[in-house]
Amino acid sequence: MNGLWLENQQLQLRSDLPIPEPKPGEALIRVLRAGICNTDLELLRGYYPYTGVLGHEFVGVVERGPQPWVDRRVVGEINAACGTCGFCRRGISTHCENRTVLGIVNRNGAFAEYLTLPVANLHPVPDNVPTDVATFAEPLAAALEIQEQVNVEPNQRVLVVGDGKLGQLVAQTLALTGCNLLAVGRHEEKLENLAARGIQTGFAEAVDEGTFDIAVECTGNPSGFELARQALRSRGILVLKSTYAGKLTLDMSSLVVDEITLIGSRCGPFAPALELLAQERVDVRSLVDRHYQLLEGLAAFDRAQERGVLKVLLEMG
Amino acid sequence: MNGLWLENQQLQLRSDLPIPEPKPGEALIRVLRAGICNTDLELLRGYYPYTGVLGHEFVGVVERGPQPWVDRRVVGEINAACGTCGFCRRGISTHCENRTVLGIVNRNGAFAEYLTLPVANLHPVPDNVPTDVATFAEPLAAALEIQEQVNVEPNQRVLVVGDGKLGQLVAQTLALTGCNLLAVGRHEEKLENLAARGIQTGFAEAVDEGTFDIAVECTGNPSGFELARQALRSRGILVLKSTYAGKLTLDMSSLVVDEITLIGSRCGPFAPALELLAQERVDVRSLVDRHYQLLEGLAAFDRAQERGVLKVLLEMG
Ligand SMILES: [Zn+2]
Ligand SMILES: [Zn+2]
Ligand SMILES: [Zn+2]
Ligand SMILES: [Zn+2]
Repeated sequence: MNGLWLENQQLQLRSDLPIPEPKPGEALIRVLRAGICNTDLELLRGYYPYTGVLGHEFVGVVERGPQPWVDRRVVGEINAACGTCGFCRRGISTHCENRTVLGIVNRNGAFAEYLTLPVANLHPVPDNVPTDVATFAEPLAAALEIQEQVNVEPNQRVLVVGDGKLGQLVAQTLALTGCNLLAVGRHEEKLENLAARGIQTGFAEAVDEGTFDIAVECTGNPSGFELARQALRSRGILVLKSTYAGKLTLDMSSLVVDEITLIGSRCGPFAPALELLAQERVDVRSLVDRHYQLLEGLAAFDRAQERGVLKVLLEMG
Repeated sequence: MNGLWLENQQLQLRSDLPIPEPKPGEALIRVLRAGICNTDLELLRGYYPYTGVLGHEFVGVVERGPQPWVDRRVVGEINAACGTCGFCRRGISTHCENRTVLGIVNRNGAFAEYLTLPVANLHPVPDNVPTDVATFAEPLAAALEIQEQVNVEPNQRVLVVGDGKLGQLVAQTLALTGCNLLAVGRHEEKLENLAARGIQTGFAEAVDEGTFDIAVECTGNPSGFELARQALRSRGILVLKSTYAGKLTLDMSSLVVDEITLIGSRCGPFAPALELLAQERVDVRSLVDRHYQLLEGLAAFDRAQERGVLKVLLEMG
């Protein structure tokens, strides 16, 4: 089959990949569509070691597997758990000690004609959700993870730093809580996309220091972190939603004196994400930049790496 | 009056200090005893700018002020709030934007014959608590702040890093929760002090990586932070109880991927601290290294700065 293979920081379009063989409890899934995310770009830059097919945001159809999954259109959680370690037994299988992660750790990903995943990871896509839209289930779930970790209340002042793909989804989901939200970024047209949905937006200068209860960092760069940190009042909460290239230097004393809470936030719940998409309460169509065929995958990655580009989607077959 | 005055990183014993004049709502307190803490040593090293009388851990007797305070033996909370800013109105006056802090920020401290504090800050010392013991109310309250911020449950695996003054109080208070506690440090005799109270202790090698639910960093140095970080399981909580000299470099991606929560923790509640001291549920006597007279204050500071020395107390008058 065809697929985009990463090896030694080189992405290659390969046509000689074997169709994967599902293990017991797994399904063979024919991929319909997949999205390129910042994590894919970071893997390409070699921030984490990975060899295999890239891609973890996808919609597909189950070709082979247990009933009632066959022929269903599905999305899938990306962490494949062992089911037996301490985390799995405690029900937090996204942190399984022996986990593989689709297109990220020890498991071939979604930028190919087929992938395999445990059926436990699958969620059926509601019929009224178009395939393009359903491709956002994974990043939207990641945005919703914030609300699993932090209690966001209607009267709270909340800042989202970053107007990229992730920042857009984070701002839209936080807006649904009724909190007093400000989204800041560097791109006028992206901020306008949020403003059009009734969200207050601005550039960094719009942030009053020391006034926010919660700040969510979605840029993955130190200046974004610094802006989020400065925005917080004492006892505020800083949510780290982005992975960072390399290390970040922190003034820990100020975290102690101001009793700041810093929370790392990663994958989230698919079911509410699919529900929001089915109810059209979150707009993802405006985040789609362009579609490419899988065979144009290298051009798609070039496009995804251009400044200011939002979501690039791959179509299979 | 006599007092230990800090200016330009020089500590001087002065005899020409005026007895302070209490403002409305404040009491004039004759200091009986005061403790030297790491924050005092950091102020002396110039980590934070401060000019004035040092000292914030004290027991005194109210000489002048509203009733029923006169002649009472008291301890005092160190943050003097303005009562009118947003934090004060929300009831978190320890974070008052205009606050002064006894012996730390814009308010002369306790290493002198007299100090002033708002009566709102005062707590009467129970009669059965000796003055030496009551001097630990402030650092013991700071240790108890952890339990205000984090829900510590009996079955949880909790690590305390650091066997110094703060680590000793943190370990003892956490032990009272019934959690599964390990305290690690570098000084055999200090760890023995905890072991004698039934607390499991060890050196850094005793820490199994990735197994603790909560880790409390009480060393204030990067290797202590690293040990605490490594000890945590995914979704674990790292409490920063120490201020840090300068900055600390962090692998933020690992915080995100492992969804770690980092919490800065500072001052805490005096009432439960005094209760624990009155009930003798926490041992502080074993933490006293030596007593010095106020007039021997410079020698007391020399002693407090020696490696491995626990609490040095000053006696006034
Ligand atoms: Zn992603
Ligand atoms: Zn597992
Ligand atoms: Zn102190
Ligand atoms: Zn105030």
